[in-house]
Amino acid sequence: MKKYILIPDSFKGTMTSAEICDIMENSIKAHQPQAEIHKIPVADGGEGTVDCFHKAAGGKRYNLEVTGPFSGETTNAEYVVLPSGAAVLETASVVGLPMVEGRENPGLATTFGLGQLAKHVVSEGTRSLIIGLGGSASNDGGCGFAAGLGVGFYNSQGKRFVPTGTTLCEIEHIDLGEVPALLEGTEITAMCDIDNPMFGPKGAARVFAPQKGADTDMVALLDENLKHLAAVIKRELAVEVADVPGSGAAGALGAGMLAFCGARLKMGIDVVLDQTGFDNLVPGSFAVFTGEGRIDGQSLSGKVVIGISRRAQKYNVPVIVFAGDIADDADAAYGEGVTAILSINRLAIPFSQAKHRAKHDLASTVDTFMRVVSLNP
Amino acid sequence: MKKYILIPDSFKGTMTSAEICDIMENSIKAHQPQAEIHKIPVADGGEGTVDCFHKAAGGKRYNLEVTGPFSGETTNAEYVVLPSGAAVLETASVVGLPMVEGRENPGLATTFGLGQLAKHVVSEGTRSLIIGLGGSASNDGGCGFAAGLGVGFYNSQGKRFVPTGTTLCEIEHIDLGEVPALLEGTEITAMCDIDNPMFGPKGAARVFAPQKGADTDMVALLDENLKHLAAVIKRELAVEVADVPGSGAAGALGAGMLAFCGARLKMGIDVVLDQTGFDNLVPGSFAVFTGEGRIDGQSLSGKVVIGISRRAQKYNVPVIVFAGDIADDADAAYGEGVTAILSINRLAIPFSQAKHRAKHDLASTVDTFMRVVSLNP
Repeated sequence: MKKYILIPDSFKGTMTSAEICDIMENSIKAHQPQAEIHKIPVADGGEGTVDCFHKAAGGKRYNLEVTGPFSGETTNAEYVVLPSGAAVLETASVVGLPMVEGRENPGLATTFGLGQLAKHVVSEGTRSLIIGLGGSASNDGGCGFAAGLGVGFYNSQGKRFVPTGTTLCEIEHIDLGEVPALLEGTEITAMCDIDNPMFGPKGAARVFAPQKGADTDMVALLDENLKHLAAVIKRELAVEVADVPGSGAAGALGAGMLAFCGARLKMGIDVVLDQTGFDNLVPGSFAVFTGEGRIDGQSLSGKVVIGISRRAQKYNVPVIVFAGDIADDADAAYGEGVTAILSINRLAIPFSQAKHRAKHDLASTVDTFMRVVSLNP
Repeated sequence: MKKYILIPDSFKGTMTSAEICDIMENSIKAHQPQAEIHKIPVADGGEGTVDCFHKAAGGKRYNLEVTGPFSGETTNAEYVVLPSGAAVLETASVVGLPMVEGRENPGLATTFGLGQLAKHVVSEGTRSLIIGLGGSASNDGGCGFAAGLGVGFYNSQGKRFVPTGTTLCEIEHIDLGEVPALLEGTEITAMCDIDNPMFGPKGAARVFAPQKGADTDMVALLDENLKHLAAVIKRELAVEVADVPGSGAAGALGAGMLAFCGARLKMGIDVVLDQTGFDNLVPGSFAVFTGEGRIDGQSLSGKVVIGISRRAQKYNVPVIVFAGDIADDADAAYGEGVTAILSINRLAIPFSQAKHRAKHDLASTVDTFMRVVSLNP
């Protein structure tokens, strides 16, 4: 009975990681009904992160009513406590872009509810938090999150307030209050697949605020305000977070996580691999199946496929990559533990047509793999 | 040391069969330098047939000066005598379309030189002729070929002449003369991958004469003339050839081959498999690699891939198909001895772009196969 580990990234715009796992499983089982199959849908830190972790590792799901995307709103945010004891939270479930559709405003959106959620989870005794940063509608530098935990932000009149994107410039003083005590002994891991800095040309506002509904003026204001926040953090908390890769994630929530609660920013795939016990699962496996929409030279710098192959390589387990597109520079992956890369394309047609067939084509390609690998060499 | 047999069809418009063989060989040898590789470029009966057979089976090449595409011209036609003693001739080397570029005239073009060539080969003692029919510029119903062998065609005035497309209607009487004696004990195989009848809506003139330069009037005349020829053949020789599948091949040269010299029409791939000793080569092989530009339901009716897989199946040797496009109905091939079908497409791009990358993509896909098949199951 062969063991397979299925741990694909999503194919953006065509298939979720969980869907890919199911398709792969079906195609394997058509050839090897007795195969032992472990499906690990890969959370990327964005919407669906809680669900992916639950599917991949099990555990128990909970809800909590917290402040929603804008002050005065509430939302029922879900989190999961994994068998390891770690809790997984996702920013997108509190202040996700789909939650503000038609009323986007990164100047006003707040991560406050995420802080409430984190506070609740910690007060329940959890000492390990995994927080997915992706898909946020906010640009508050994580000040809302910090305020939700209990951090105090004060303006020049000494008035305490919860800063949002447009009011970050009013912060004069930061009081961490009880938060360091609350988080004593707690490990917070922020899942973040981007390496943007807090502000500047590649910063949170300039790169991501337009898709959150900011016009040119708003982008400039948000960028300026994040710069102010960085300066206040440096002055008040004596830490420099602005240029830490990933500090610009989720409207600079990454920076806030670093500054206000000593979080570590980590690539999503590494968190997934750790939390699902990948390293224990791999030895003795016949193959690890992974995949992504496009594998290219860029994939080799920390993305899902390479994160997986580097680990599997240690145990001499083959890694098979199923990809939408295979760029010409993808062969470099063969030096990083990838055994074979299969394109799911079966017709010479453009992506606009191919995407509608992606599920069928993936199934057929896994089927082809199973046929080839069954040849007795 | 594993044995591989490489026997791909050409990918029309991108790679010849011989090119594909070389690419496959290189990709195999990169993984298994000691592999025993047999390359069998597949002749389709058209231009390059002599060359393909020579590459696939060895033997000796010869030239003969014969009449060219039009009366009064000469051309140096090549043929090969295989180790089996069979001679391979190709119509395209005597009256091929590229030879008449800019002066196409299927009403005047003649297969006379091919008859001369056949006569010469037979007079040299060869008792097995393989004649590729594809790529002809003629529409003479094989009367030129027959005349070249020695058959007499007479008009209503009793005058002997060499009919061409436009003068077939003048044939009143046919005298086989010495030809039956000449061909006594000689086996003539006409390679022909189409099943069109001699005339009518799917006949030689209607379907193929336009691409040989015939306008609408010419097409109608040629079609009418072939009908006349069929009637004369029936009356004079007491054979009915008009509806034999393939009689419409090469401007109805197929019909002439049947009527004037008792040839057998055979699918190209079957002739190739027979002449290259495929059935002796296959046992003990690790895999047969084949391929075609597109594999679909139609491929399953006598085309290269299926011709090969049906034979390899008898010896339990896996057949791996490399294809440009894999149509959704191609899975039926799995019931015909095909083991796995791999698409060479590695990017979701249209054929207009993909064709320029075909060689690279084929090499990469064979490489992927070698990687997968090396996994220890």
